[in-house]
Amino acid sequence: MITFDTRPDAYKHWKLTFDGPIATLSMDVREDAGLSQDYKLKLNSYDLGVDIELADAIQRLRFEHPEVRTVIVSSLKERIFCAGANIMMLRGSSHVTKVNFCKFTNETRLAMEDASAHSGLKFLAALNGICAGGGYELALACDDILLVDDGNSAVSLPEAPLLGVLPGTGGLTRVVDKRHVRRDLADFFSTLVEGVKGKRAVEWRLVDAVFPTSQFKAAVQTRAQALANASDRPNDGTPGISLNPLNPAVTPSSITYSAVSLTYNREKRTADLTVQGPSGPQPASVAEIVAAGDQFWPLRAFRELDDALLRLRVNEPEIGTIIIRTHGDPNAVLAIDALLVANRRHWLVREILHFMKRTLKRMDLTSRTFFAFIEPGSAFAGSLFELALAADRSYMLHDDDEQNVVALSPLNFDLLLMSNGITRLRTRFLHDDMKLAELIAHEGPFNAAEAEEIGLVTFAPDEIDWEDEVRVAVEARAAFSPDAMTGLEANLRFAGPETMETKIFGRLTAWQNWIFQRPNAVGAKGALQSYGEQGRPEFDWKRT
Amino acid sequence: MITFDTRPDAYKHWKLTFDGPIATLSMDVREDAGLSQDYKLKLNSYDLGVDIELADAIQRLRFEHPEVRTVIVSSLKERIFCAGANIMMLRGSSHVTKVNFCKFTNETRLAMEDASAHSGLKFLAALNGICAGGGYELALACDDILLVDDGNSAVSLPEAPLLGVLPGTGGLTRVVDKRHVRRDLADFFSTLVEGVKGKRAVEWRLVDAVFPTSQFKAAVQTRAQALANASDRPNDGTPGISLNPLNPAVTPSSITYSAVSLTYNREKRTADLTVQGPSGPQPASVAEIVAAGDQFWPLRAFRELDDALLRLRVNEPEIGTIIIRTHGDPNAVLAIDALLVANRRHWLVREILHFMKRTLKRMDLTSRTFFAFIEPGSAFAGSLFELALAADRSYMLHDDDEQNVVALSPLNFDLLLMSNGITRLRTRFLHDDMKLAELIAHEGPFNAAEAEEIGLVTFAPDEIDWEDEVRVAVEARAAFSPDAMTGLEANLRFAGPETMETKIFGRLTAWQNWIFQRPNAVGAKGALQSYGEQGRPEFDWKRT
Repeated sequence: MITFDTRPDAYKHWKLTFDGPIATLSMDVREDAGLSQDYKLKLNSYDLGVDIELADAIQRLRFEHPEVRTVIVSSLKERIFCAGANIMMLRGSSHVTKVNFCKFTNETRLAMEDASAHSGLKFLAALNGICAGGGYELALACDDILLVDDGNSAVSLPEAPLLGVLPGTGGLTRVVDKRHVRRDLADFFSTLVEGVKGKRAVEWRLVDAVFPTSQFKAAVQTRAQALANASDRPNDGTPGISLNPLNPAVTPSSITYSAVSLTYNREKRTADLTVQGPSGPQPASVAEIVAAGDQFWPLRAFRELDDALLRLRVNEPEIGTIIIRTHGDPNAVLAIDALLVANRRHWLVREILHFMKRTLKRMDLTSRTFFAFIEPGSAFAGSLFELALAADRSYMLHDDDEQNVVALSPLNFDLLLMSNGITRLRTRFLHDDMKLAELIAHEGPFNAAEAEEIGLVTFAPDEIDWEDEVRVAVEARAAFSPDAMTGLEANLRFAGPETMETKIFGRLTAWQNWIFQRPNAVGAKGALQSYGEQGRPEFDWKRT
Repeated sequence: MITFDTRPDAYKHWKLTFDGPIATLSMDVREDAGLSQDYKLKLNSYDLGVDIELADAIQRLRFEHPEVRTVIVSSLKERIFCAGANIMMLRGSSHVTKVNFCKFTNETRLAMEDASAHSGLKFLAALNGICAGGGYELALACDDILLVDDGNSAVSLPEAPLLGVLPGTGGLTRVVDKRHVRRDLADFFSTLVEGVKGKRAVEWRLVDAVFPTSQFKAAVQTRAQALANASDRPNDGTPGISLNPLNPAVTPSSITYSAVSLTYNREKRTADLTVQGPSGPQPASVAEIVAAGDQFWPLRAFRELDDALLRLRVNEPEIGTIIIRTHGDPNAVLAIDALLVANRRHWLVREILHFMKRTLKRMDLTSRTFFAFIEPGSAFAGSLFELALAADRSYMLHDDDEQNVVALSPLNFDLLLMSNGITRLRTRFLHDDMKLAELIAHEGPFNAAEAEEIGLVTFAPDEIDWEDEVRVAVEARAAFSPDAMTGLEANLRFAGPETMETKIFGRLTAWQNWIFQRPNAVGAKGALQSYGEQGRPEFDWKRT
């Protein structure tokens, strides 16, 4: 079973050091410390275990180190920055494992860009040596890329020419859509095994600057300081908060956290995911939020939800349908939302809000069906109602006494944006601004009839129909082709605009997944499978 | 060998009738007249042959019938509109054939929307019976959808639940992004084999209106007239022009038209595609353009180019790399462009410009590598320079006497938009408005050094290097994995914004192609392969 809990003093592959507002995150991958003993992580190549540490480091920099404004991403290996995802690892991985690996690495790189765009935490790639494939894709996620000009160090995306696959961590998309490398130059570059170095790398916009070895360190420091100066993170000695281990109780059929529980029914290929709303006294000010730290309900609950989604993805591939429920007092959720919105410019509240946003995105991008069941005693209000909006469908019990309600908060209208750059409500009511105005104008909660009428929930069966209707819905869903459901959901969930982020998960990932199924890559004589062995790969030459 | 030339009196599957400004295009598929005898086209199901006629009809309505303002799309079969793509045809098709089929049908439906958006030719789907899968996707491409309310007729997208594949002709995308069906309702609808009918179909926005059988014909006429009234097509008796057969000379290794030639080198998996610019006296006014009809150079050359691309796609799957050249007088092309731009509001000129646009889009969407070779005597100017901009790379010979030039016209800055909604120049210089201003300000042609410096071409080798450089580039390209090149090009060609159109070809098609490779669909026990046979499909339940 793969878990995602780690901490800096347990890192095997990264060193995190601090120098005032500048942190340095150095890659120093231990060859023999991969998640599996089937491969060696040579030349700073990486597997999921290396990336779990990277994701952890970025998350901790946001919450535990508000004083950090620039992160230098570099390597402790001589003349090697990073050789990219480990090829032997990819070759030995199942299709599902490949896809989950790419999804997580993509989410981690997007989290870096999210930190830069929204939290004033800037990233500087200091490429002190060869930077290939996923290594260059990591650099592309940074704000600036500096490359040493030593006559040898180059950036490259050799996946297509060497392995017959795509650079799968956003490389193609970021080259043209973020760095605005001309598409014809990008085409040439992406077929050049040896990559591009020196002045040409700058001219083509592949890197921001190159410096001779003798000047490289100083140039990195200068640029890191300049990035730090542009940051709006606190510089008054504000301490961070600690992200303590989640320590869920794990049984063969369940994971139980403080506010989240996940229970598997493997026979039916379903799971029950339940989120408990806040209870008891809650912070009423920023000072109390800071004092509560990682035990503050939204941070605690969403950290647990995030962890549950990740474990589900990598450890339970056959669980296709998730029933999501909430319990608690809707008004308590609304009060927390109001507190968050009122203090949204405070550094910690900002981090909490963006983390909630990222967790909900993780749900959008989880290739499992989600059905929300809204029953009496639930707390589908405000930020927790986003779980119902993120679900593929929602079923709300129309109870006879009409006590079962859902409610909206300002967080449903802003801040918790999807990857497509708009809210889930706006995606739901695409180009229907009148509907949004109507929802904003509505006072108080919505009972089941109201919620169905205005379109906040999919169906609202009454007490006579409820059991049968939801049972049939789940059974039918679980019987469909898992691949068809993945494709269906990937298309229906992301209505509306596309962004660089959705292009990475839509266009790029979908094509990569296709290639990951093709004999030209993964067949016995395919390019990925035969890389490093005698002889050339053999291709079916038909173009598709 | 599949060809794309047809004409209304040769149609096997459609009837095209006229009543003033309203044409009716009626589907009446002949069961025994499929492209192959391996399947029967029952219940108005279709194969590529049916769609080639549909594409031809739409094209002729634009050029030959400027008086037509509304096209009613209906069926001559009782109680059946269209059952969608023929399942036995899909089941028996290779992966490449499936993908090419979907691409062409998608282009045809987008051509309908293009006619509505830009040429005042509106489409009304008159669903007189069961409308399933690709049948409903055809309706979705229309401006309005009217459904008969007879207690039986429904619209449906049963592909996912029945066949384990996606509705592959834009259905999922159009449901949420064009018709703004709520995503949760779309999810439910797309898993419902029997579909949705009557009032619910209207409430969910799946159709625009339903009418009882007794009122249906009258309602269709009323709505068709209303659409016609909103059209800006000529209503003064202007005659159309005839689109005569192209009649290319075909040999085993070449297709030769009047202005276009395509020569295969199958051993090297390359082809040479050459376009001849205009020569001799050319029309100088709208009257002369109309008189020239389909022999007017841009219409003639682009019709030939379009046909060549289509034949290449379906008949030559192993030709991976196309070298594109032009011959002629660049100034003659620029003069034609100026004439087109000056008269762009004339109905025929408008049609010609939009057809040039669609042909260039067809090139963007052709999954083969294009390299443009710009050599002395070429005519890469204005609209023909779009071929170099559409290419994955361009190589321009830097000749000693600097006579080899490229040139821009207003058509490079507007009108010939890509699927992503912007020009190829803007896509090339994404977010670099200064560069576009510089290009607009430039007077006269660009020699090789200038074109390379400003970024209009990829490389400009001199006469000493030319032969080796272009030979190596082509040989290297032709040796790469065809799948990796398809994925690479699909990602790099469409930098910048995404539109509903690019989402159909990016997100939807890429996922569909993945599913078309998956054993859950196409394995011996897969849902597509086992449909209609005893027993249920067997799935690998792992979610990806």
